[in-house]
Amino acid sequence: MTSSRQRLHLILDPEVALPGAQRFRFAQLMLILIGIGCTLVDSIPGIDHQLQMAVEMAIALVGLAFAFEYALRLWCAPDLPRLTWLNPAAARWHWALSPAGIVDLLAILPVTGALTWGMILPPDFAAVMVLLFMLKLSAHTPGARLIGRVIYNERRTLLVVMIMFGIVLIAAATLAHIAERADQPEIFGSIPKALWWAIVTLTTTGYGDVVPQTAFGRIIAGFVMISGIGVLALLAGILATGFSEEVKRRDFVRIWELVARVPLFSGIGAQAIADVVARLKARYFPPGAMVVRRGAPGDSMFFIAAGEVEVRLQPESVILSEGMFFGEMALLDRRPRSADIVTLTSCTMLVLAMPDFFQLAGQHPALAKAIEAEAARRRGDG
Amino acid sequence: MTSSRQRLHLILDPEVALPGAQRFRFAQLMLILIGIGCTLVDSIPGIDHQLQMAVEMAIALVGLAFAFEYALRLWCAPDLPRLTWLNPAAARWHWALSPAGIVDLLAILPVTGALTWGMILPPDFAAVMVLLFMLKLSAHTPGARLIGRVIYNERRTLLVVMIMFGIVLIAAATLAHIAERADQPEIFGSIPKALWWAIVTLTTTGYGDVVPQTAFGRIIAGFVMISGIGVLALLAGILATGFSEEVKRRDFVRIWELVARVPLFSGIGAQAIADVVARLKARYFPPGAMVVRRGAPGDSMFFIAAGEVEVRLQPESVILSEGMFFGEMALLDRRPRSADIVTLTSCTMLVLAMPDFFQLAGQHPALAKAIEAEAARRRGDG
Amino acid sequence: MTSSRQRLHLILDPEVALPGAQRFRFAQLMLILIGIGCTLVDSIPGIDHQLQMAVEMAIALVGLAFAFEYALRLWCAPDLPRLTWLNPAAARWHWALSPAGIVDLLAILPVTGALTWGMILPPDFAAVMVLLFMLKLSAHTPGARLIGRVIYNERRTLLVVMIMFGIVLIAAATLAHIAERADQPEIFGSIPKALWWAIVTLTTTGYGDVVPQTAFGRIIAGFVMISGIGVLALLAGILATGFSEEVKRRDFVRIWELVARVPLFSGIGAQAIADVVARLKARYFPPGAMVVRRGAPGDSMFFIAAGEVEVRLQPESVILSEGMFFGEMALLDRRPRSADIVTLTSCTMLVLAMPDFFQLAGQHPALAKAIEAEAARRRGDG
Amino acid sequence: MTSSRQRLHLILDPEVALPGAQRFRFAQLMLILIGIGCTLVDSIPGIDHQLQMAVEMAIALVGLAFAFEYALRLWCAPDLPRLTWLNPAAARWHWALSPAGIVDLLAILPVTGALTWGMILPPDFAAVMVLLFMLKLSAHTPGARLIGRVIYNERRTLLVVMIMFGIVLIAAATLAHIAERADQPEIFGSIPKALWWAIVTLTTTGYGDVVPQTAFGRIIAGFVMISGIGVLALLAGILATGFSEEVKRRDFVRIWELVARVPLFSGIGAQAIADVVARLKARYFPPGAMVVRRGAPGDSMFFIAAGEVEVRLQPESVILSEGMFFGEMALLDRRPRSADIVTLTSCTMLVLAMPDFFQLAGQHPALAKAIEAEAARRRGDG
Repeated sequence: MTSSRQRLHLILDPEVALPGAQRFRFAQLMLILIGIGCTLVDSIPGIDHQLQMAVEMAIALVGLAFAFEYALRLWCAPDLPRLTWLNPAAARWHWALSPAGIVDLLAILPVTGALTWGMILPPDFAAVMVLLFMLKLSAHTPGARLIGRVIYNERRTLLVVMIMFGIVLIAAATLAHIAERADQPEIFGSIPKALWWAIVTLTTTGYGDVVPQTAFGRIIAGFVMISGIGVLALLAGILATGFSEEVKRRDFVRIWELVARVPLFSGIGAQAIADVVARLKARYFPPGAMVVRRGAPGDSMFFIAAGEVEVRLQPESVILSEGMFFGEMALLDRRPRSADIVTLTSCTMLVLAMPDFFQLAGQHPALAKAIEAEAARRRGDG
Repeated sequence: MTSSRQRLHLILDPEVALPGAQRFRFAQLMLILIGIGCTLVDSIPGIDHQLQMAVEMAIALVGLAFAFEYALRLWCAPDLPRLTWLNPAAARWHWALSPAGIVDLLAILPVTGALTWGMILPPDFAAVMVLLFMLKLSAHTPGARLIGRVIYNERRTLLVVMIMFGIVLIAAATLAHIAERADQPEIFGSIPKALWWAIVTLTTTGYGDVVPQTAFGRIIAGFVMISGIGVLALLAGILATGFSEEVKRRDFVRIWELVARVPLFSGIGAQAIADVVARLKARYFPPGAMVVRRGAPGDSMFFIAAGEVEVRLQPESVILSEGMFFGEMALLDRRPRSADIVTLTSCTMLVLAMPDFFQLAGQHPALAKAIEAEAARRRGDG
Repeated sequence: MTSSRQRLHLILDPEVALPGAQRFRFAQLMLILIGIGCTLVDSIPGIDHQLQMAVEMAIALVGLAFAFEYALRLWCAPDLPRLTWLNPAAARWHWALSPAGIVDLLAILPVTGALTWGMILPPDFAAVMVLLFMLKLSAHTPGARLIGRVIYNERRTLLVVMIMFGIVLIAAATLAHIAERADQPEIFGSIPKALWWAIVTLTTTGYGDVVPQTAFGRIIAGFVMISGIGVLALLAGILATGFSEEVKRRDFVRIWELVARVPLFSGIGAQAIADVVARLKARYFPPGAMVVRRGAPGDSMFFIAAGEVEVRLQPESVILSEGMFFGEMALLDRRPRSADIVTLTSCTMLVLAMPDFFQLAGQHPALAKAIEAEAARRRGDG
Repeated sequence: MTSSRQRLHLILDPEVALPGAQRFRFAQLMLILIGIGCTLVDSIPGIDHQLQMAVEMAIALVGLAFAFEYALRLWCAPDLPRLTWLNPAAARWHWALSPAGIVDLLAILPVTGALTWGMILPPDFAAVMVLLFMLKLSAHTPGARLIGRVIYNERRTLLVVMIMFGIVLIAAATLAHIAERADQPEIFGSIPKALWWAIVTLTTTGYGDVVPQTAFGRIIAGFVMISGIGVLALLAGILATGFSEEVKRRDFVRIWELVARVPLFSGIGAQAIADVVARLKARYFPPGAMVVRRGAPGDSMFFIAAGEVEVRLQPESVILSEGMFFGEMALLDRRPRSADIVTLTSCTMLVLAMPDFFQLAGQHPALAKAIEAEAARRRGDG
């Protein structure tokens, strides 16, 4: 029983890469999208009554599904590895009171309420539902945590840029107020009013509802627009750098775990293994996918981290399984691929692109020699 | 005969760098641009009848040219290296049913139809033609595949950003709907209506047709604009990183193949060769181009991957051909160039810039010694 | 006495990371925000008289607090380490006449004036106050110096881009003036008038108050918009690169100083220490924070640069203090964390992420051996 | 005489860093700005007659100055090092017919014409003058060549993005034309008309003069805006990368030449020298500048590439001249600066920041030892 709870918990974890978890996440995403779509349709004033009945039925079904999901999450909460020392009831309370638990509860409350007390819903039902669904979606998207970590890592630098942004914003509003209040007292009559113009201009949105008319106001506007471009540029640089670093760190950890499954890499030292991990990319293939096509140019080699592939050679096929590699011959001999290679099961491959292959081979001759030995053995066979 | 088919196939391949293929691509691009230009002129209501006749004639000619191209592509389809085991008819069917084949067929259908059944065309003829020409153009542009691969490589990260974008978009529309529906029921009366405002604001386009009026609505708008800048920044970072990585990978493979033609590099080990390849840049020169001008400062050296150059020395000229190099003396002696060097044929050079030259020389002394030996021999000569 | 002045000076320094200095900065920021908020409210025409009295009282109090801060800064000025050879009076004059001193004086002048001559303030009181507060805020924000240095470092490149921007701007205005002056003489009648359109378009703000109507004017507008995107792209690249380099340089200096407190690093050579510093990140934890949670995956190890932590082991807890490290066992054994680790005091940790740990271990085997020895000793203990 | 021509030629060269050349460029920039400013004032319809007389006089003077510059450039043309084998007359013709020569001639023609035939100028005089001044400015700005080289280096990738941009633009215009022509025949009635909307939207300018009204048109608009952000992101990535690479290459060549003047670096090998060059930054100081302030933290060391500095020690000052270095003691001992150091002449320094100092010291122990020996000798002295 514990085992089934643990398995269910893994499937419900938004960061797990198992097929079951991916299918669950896809279904959940679809349900949220259906829920949002129906709620949006429901919110249009004066829509057809029958259509309204249908979409409200759909919303209720989505709500029921989410209530079921909530129950499952509550049930399997205690088996979280990091909370194993708590008793089940305490662990369930712990989850129910965590941000994720509260968001999931909130997402089902309006529907449950509606089902219980009949279809008499508050007029803002649609807006509240959409916001709660959005909250649920951001709590369960795998990328949301990634973006959250990036913002957390760069919080100091982002704060600096935000303070700069605020300084430019308020200074611009004040100067524009001084320049324009005589000509346009209604929209530049006070600094808070001029702030609206300042943010619309500093982000280069430019609605055009508030436009400076005096020469001095326009010169200020010019500088504000250029500052806006500069702020955007700084933000772009900070977020882009932070994002790519965080993605690299996550990928390193993932590939580190997969590399352990390939015997070729087990004998090499710590420095080589770190170099190898930094250069490999994990790629997923469904069953029946053609990984390598005969006659195509060879631009990378593959290590099988999970699954099996079939090498379609003329006399008879060869099966390669977890821990084995292929595709090195086209790289070493600079020739096109000599056979089709097709996945038999769903596979996770570690791909080593040609530039990385040769740079690794140069830095770690032992590794190169092991790969060449295997290629020589295969050439003797084929 | 097979050989002429293979050659034709190479010329029609959008990724091949041969002069014939480049000339073909230029002609094709011109034809598409003429086709689009004429179709656009044709679509203007109430244009001069004679002008209309002329542009429709031009469209018909472009269509005929494309029909001829289609026939050529169909004829030379079987000799694709990777499909060599199929019989010609099957290979032609294979190409005709591939996305590229279908796009090329679609691009000629309306014109063929028009020529067959007279000039009575459907009223949307122009719009459909333009879209089909655009489709054909994107199928044959060499960069389209590159951008496609970048988007494919980064698809997970892009999906994350798109989901974030969607969450901000819908939440913004919902909050603006709550804030503004009392004041502006026509444009914020339902969440789907408010979505239009949200996307115009989140991308900082700011048409100005829909502008929040309440204080709360404007505060939401401010946060949406700043989020828009953040989303743009994230997208910029992801696409820029992915693009530059993909370009590097493609260049590595290209230069790897060219390096094999320079004997100087054949003796050095795998690590050195990977370093060399990463630092070289391929550059194309037409015949008669002055690669190096006497008296100019020396900032790079050149390896001839294809073609011949003439070194214009005072007593008599020297011809250098494929696999030889020049320009190293100005780098080693820190002096201006001592002679004009002009291409005799169209040439592909591998260029090594000064910073890379000295870094390579430091890391691989054997390579530096070989280059210096050649320079010393030439100095003795000159 | 000198010592109390020095300590106060440190607390008032915007770049110092001491807890006292951070608390002071937070209070100062709050005061400035309150001051700005109240001034903004005060500037709204026709607000309630009693509210106005209240906010003016608040502004006066903020002004008094700033006057007190000014007196403190003036008093502790001489003990600046770099000015230690001057006598106190000269040092105070030196500070009072420095940009920071003048800004601080200006920020209190209007309030002091108002308190002295009664509440009869000039009508632009609010705007001037806001600008002075903004000036004070930018003088004391730690990030302002950072951004200032980035702009200083990149000043040549930025100047180049600004000149390019100016060239495009004026050329666009001139061409649009030629194209549009016949149709729209009021807004394109002279080149200075057309400049307003050019800047609104080149920054892609697009208010929409001035729009070209002729075909030629619109073609120019299209090129101006695309140039605007290009300028933005160039600025983004320059600022982003410069910003990230400056942040790295600052972090290197900070971490360099912290590393000296960890004995493990004292024995290794200069090359290793530079590698270590480049890979470590400094992170601050408040007292009672859970740094490592039992059962969580191990993705980094920690060096204590300041403070104490408690390792909560089953039989009894262990206290680790400055210079010691923890978290290496989960990395070495690839297992989840085996204990909770909680800070007892406020701590500064140097964090080494897993990828960096293994790359360092590969490059500097002596360091890896020392860490493994400590882990072995602990395993023997536990 | 030849020598005075060569010197003048150097001063007129926009890429030369000599003080005379910099002063000349500053004067030229001021003249162009005055010329543009006056021409802009002159172009305002109905300005005061006397003001008009004054600005036209100023324009005439600027024109005369440019004519004098043209004569100088023509006179010193032959001594260009790379053209030294031509006779003076041929070299002058060569320069006069080069793009730079033609631009310089064009910039003086209108003024010369106006002075010759009296002040009866064509009505478009102002616009033409501004364009010609802009052309002259871009021909003589040092950054213009840099940006030109970046665009040349990245021309293939930029072309790809531009073709993508064109495809999205035309496809968007076509689809919007289909969606909106029934509702808004005047602005979406033909595809060329819809192109105006497409470019305003794709660059996220959003004037708001043309806005889609139908649901389908708005969905297209949403995708166009997001594509616009993507195109901007790609352009930003390409230009930013290309720009920073080109700047690095230029700096490497500059610093390479300066490094030759420092004897410390003359004994070290090719690999070390390339590492050193990559880490140094050139910085210019005017005479009398305080390079290092006593008591300030030491974060870099300095090598004198040109000029002299005075180290203000207590008993007596020490003069350091070209090829010597200072500032290493604060780095080695981790102490504040022990003396003020002031430039006596205008100086060019090579600056080595602290992180780079320690990384270099680790990689090249011989270099570190030489610097430490000098520091020890100085400590013995001081």
